[in-house]
Amino acid sequence: MKAIILFGHGARDSRWREPFDRLATLWQEQHPATPVALAFLEMMQPSLEEAVASLSAQGATELTVVPVFFGQGGHLRNDFPVLLEECRGKFPGVTLSATPAVGEDLAVLQAIVDFGARAL
Amino acid sequence: MKAIILFGHGARDSRWREPFDRLATLWQEQHPATPVALAFLEMMQPSLEEAVASLSAQGATELTVVPVFFGQGGHLRNDFPVLLEECRGKFPGVTLSATPAVGEDLAVLQAIVDFGARAL
Repeated sequence: MKAIILFGHGARDSRWREPFDRLATLWQEQHPATPVALAFLEMMQPSLEEAVASLSAQGATELTVVPVFFGQGGHLRNDFPVLLEECRGKFPGVTLSATPAVGEDLAVLQAIVDFGARAL
Repeated sequence: MKAIILFGHGARDSRWREPFDRLATLWQEQHPATPVALAFLEMMQPSLEEAVASLSAQGATELTVVPVFFGQGGHLRNDFPVLLEECRGKFPGVTLSATPAVGEDLAVLQAIVDFGARAL
């Protein structure tokens, strides 16, 4: 079974995660056959490993991790591949792949441009 | 004249800003009559104040700042209003307003969901 992990940075202020909760809800409404989990790099739970464990326990065998970051800086170029590799080692029955950051997607950028245009 | 500032967090790795440069380019292509500037909270230039100065020097009098952040945590709830107020004090001829974070926009979240769905 396929599943998706929406991977964000995390923050001290718990309200920071509200859009991530909304993203997971939207995903589950629109893709009910594909379980979703959030995961955070730091300051919020669950970790990537905890999210992989949870989805694996639900029977997921093909996991796609979507980094919900704008830019691909040190976190995604250095920290994230290490975490991903650790998860691959700990969950040999799960195939883990990752997309580029969502900020690399033209449709995401276009939605931001349109949001700005509506605000002017 | 109206203008827009796309306000991001900033990062040590200069490649992190690539989507922001793309955003500014997209904006300028689609809204050529409305100047755009990037601005960053930390670790990247220009600052919000520098961006306001630059657009003001180009004749902008109504500036809308769009926080290109997912969540509204400490940076947007605490740091950003202070910066905005400082800019208002320093540029009395400019009207400065701000939108919520782009992560509050349903169309932005939907674009992220669609990006994930295409990757599965």
